[in-house]
Amino acid sequence: MSTLNALFEARSVAIVGASDNPHKLGGRPVAYMKRLGYKGKIIPVNPTSKMVQGLPAIASLADLKEPVDLAVLATPEAMVEGIVKTGLDNGIKNFVVFASGYAEIDEQGLAKQRQLEALFEGTDARLLGPNCLGFINTKTQLIASFTTAMEANPLKLGRLSFAGHSGALGAYWLDKTIRADIGVSKWISSGNESNVDIANIVEYLANDPDTQVISLYIEAIRNPARFEEALTLAKQNNKIVVALKGGKTAAGARATQAHTASNTLNGVDYKTIFNRTGVIEVDSLSEMIKQCQYGLSGLTLKGNRVGVISISGGAGVMLSDQLTANGLNVNDFSASLRDLVRPLLSPHSTTQNPVDLTAAMVAQPTMLGDVATTMIESNEYDALVIFMGLMDSIADSITRSLLALDKSVDCPVFLIWMGGKAECIKQLSKTNIIVFDDIPELVSLIARSKPGC
Amino acid sequence: MSTLNALFEARSVAIVGASDNPHKLGGRPVAYMKRLGYKGKIIPVNPTSKMVQGLPAIASLADLKEPVDLAVLATPEAMVEGIVKTGLDNGIKNFVVFASGYAEIDEQGLAKQRQLEALFEGTDARLLGPNCLGFINTKTQLIASFTTAMEANPLKLGRLSFAGHSGALGAYWLDKTIRADIGVSKWISSGNESNVDIANIVEYLANDPDTQVISLYIEAIRNPARFEEALTLAKQNNKIVVALKGGKTAAGARATQAHTASNTLNGVDYKTIFNRTGVIEVDSLSEMIKQCQYGLSGLTLKGNRVGVISISGGAGVMLSDQLTANGLNVNDFSASLRDLVRPLLSPHSTTQNPVDLTAAMVAQPTMLGDVATTMIESNEYDALVIFMGLMDSIADSITRSLLALDKSVDCPVFLIWMGGKAECIKQLSKTNIIVFDDIPELVSLIARSKPGC
Repeated sequence: MSTLNALFEARSVAIVGASDNPHKLGGRPVAYMKRLGYKGKIIPVNPTSKMVQGLPAIASLADLKEPVDLAVLATPEAMVEGIVKTGLDNGIKNFVVFASGYAEIDEQGLAKQRQLEALFEGTDARLLGPNCLGFINTKTQLIASFTTAMEANPLKLGRLSFAGHSGALGAYWLDKTIRADIGVSKWISSGNESNVDIANIVEYLANDPDTQVISLYIEAIRNPARFEEALTLAKQNNKIVVALKGGKTAAGARATQAHTASNTLNGVDYKTIFNRTGVIEVDSLSEMIKQCQYGLSGLTLKGNRVGVISISGGAGVMLSDQLTANGLNVNDFSASLRDLVRPLLSPHSTTQNPVDLTAAMVAQPTMLGDVATTMIESNEYDALVIFMGLMDSIADSITRSLLALDKSVDCPVFLIWMGGKAECIKQLSKTNIIVFDDIPELVSLIARSKPGC
Repeated sequence: MSTLNALFEARSVAIVGASDNPHKLGGRPVAYMKRLGYKGKIIPVNPTSKMVQGLPAIASLADLKEPVDLAVLATPEAMVEGIVKTGLDNGIKNFVVFASGYAEIDEQGLAKQRQLEALFEGTDARLLGPNCLGFINTKTQLIASFTTAMEANPLKLGRLSFAGHSGALGAYWLDKTIRADIGVSKWISSGNESNVDIANIVEYLANDPDTQVISLYIEAIRNPARFEEALTLAKQNNKIVVALKGGKTAAGARATQAHTASNTLNGVDYKTIFNRTGVIEVDSLSEMIKQCQYGLSGLTLKGNRVGVISISGGAGVMLSDQLTANGLNVNDFSASLRDLVRPLLSPHSTTQNPVDLTAAMVAQPTMLGDVATTMIESNEYDALVIFMGLMDSIADSITRSLLALDKSVDCPVFLIWMGGKAECIKQLSKTNIIVFDDIPELVSLIARSKPGC
């Protein structure tokens, strides 16, 4: 089977059902690509308008002078089959179908989907969907999607890609990456997976030089052997794969049947596949985003030893409890490190790991950077966790210390800043320091990222 | 021993070390009480100024014409013992000591603390601290604390109280209640607990008619029998107690020793005490705040049956998985309920629990309220979970539906609104609907709140 490069890197795209109204489903892809500067050719297809959003339109795919790389169908389900047939007849090799009303509904819908799929038999043409939100390629600003998640903010180019069975979760994922200022390479919604499934997409992303971390929302694994092969390829190519799995219980499986027409309790042992291929499983989109940020940092935990610096004694206590309860080691300083750290702290502080900076830090904000650097340079810890809370009056100084730290070390640094100033958190999001709101999500990330996990 | 009413409800307060500078530690209590309108008498004590922040000051507690209910010591540790002695000699019965440098530091500090405590032997006088952030009584706006957490926003009066061993965590707790618009009754930082400990405070709050939910951060339980008695009293008086426990592991206990001079691994089986007295244990401040909001709502889960309504099929799948994995039951509709719900949904939706509203809701935003009301009125579910994501274009309509729902039912309703508009979330925070950012924290709350838990 052909690779998916021609689909996801199309240099010309026909939008069938293109609307002059940029807010309508068929108007959005045109509007987004125009605004963001898609590097290829856009051809609106509309039976009644000669111009769509200022671009010359054609009435049908039959009117194309030469085949486009991709046809995006933003039409109701009833028109899909005819349009796909015309497209195939006119040499188009790649289709995206947004329409729902197929196998996810009932037996009649399933029959319609089989009929659509039959058009592709014996061809090397590809159909993404139906019942999907399409895809985005940030590098070329190819927006073959009607998701509004990037309507207010353009997508930043980066090395993180998404593929998933839920378009809506994909949209929330996009929104979260935009808010966290994370750059994206490809974003792909696979829907009912007529002839492009998650395994195909993972294989494509595993070979994509622009993708470093692959983020997946998975319901059914339709072909476990091919899925595992794709994940193995990703591992061989040093890609990090982070996955959220839906449909693990009977109640969840009942819901996936109505969602993407998939039976997730089909005997596939996804946990074993994940373990064998090094996939990191998370339990929520929030965890997903943090885990991907960590993957993108390129930093890794080489051991289990965690150093903790806290502005709150109580937070230091809770971090010590939760880290050790999750198999990490919050071991104390060696005698020589204690001697190095003692003069950096207030005389009222005990010199130990976890370090309690106490309110003395307010008068001496450089304390944070000094202690952190000393602990990292000691090589006694494999990761450093810093806990800050509020501290508006010295927030800029804290931020400067952390920005300086980010440049100097290759040890993973994690920050919890409870009630921290939004603009400081934003500045820090551009670094390799992963920022959290509270303790448990950080502890889960470190526990999942331990050597041997 | 006397109750703590005279301490926490003092009608006159001397601030020793009161500063004219409202930003200094000794200036803050005066500034806050003046600004917020403390209903009692404030007497600044300052040896060199006749006026402090516009109030007439005295030079020493010896100069008081009659004893005040409370003396707050905002002075360095070296001056504390002398001032307390003068206060006791002049008939003062209640003291708050902010200074650190006692048992939490070393043997010498411990000796100093014992010396301070000796002054109270054979008296019924009370000392909160040392090494504490003091307390706040919102009803009378008595701010015997230097915490800056309520500097920007006045505290709203409400029925939630806090007591804890960590002043900093207490400050973050305050900040979170302010952001979530939750009213507070008492806020108490106990520090080294010379002669007022958490058990005394819980006993006081258990009898406090203005407190409905008690929120605790606990390191050492110094007197397990008295602590359990106090919690039993709270239970008898129908107060809900939510606790975060620090110092559960060897590493955590090492940290509590340096934090509040407490050995938390002293053989006290806190879990058994919590279980016997119905204390709800949480793992983070974020969880704490949500659990307290739920407690304040007065609503309870009468069974394990959870109805789910989602705008995202994928989120419905994940909710089904995680709820059932945590012992909840996401059972499907009865035939009669199915018949009632079917006409409310798009023809492309499957009529089942979890309900997938699909994008059809955008065109018909009343769908949410209609389906929710029908499910609640069916009595087939003990709680309703609603998942929304983004939806800026119909956010106001969603909010109106939820506000209407809040008024009509006594079934707990939980909302996850991923990427929801801040102003809508703020409006909903005034209702009994608890709002979450993501799925796991909601599932944990419901799992902890099941009958029999």
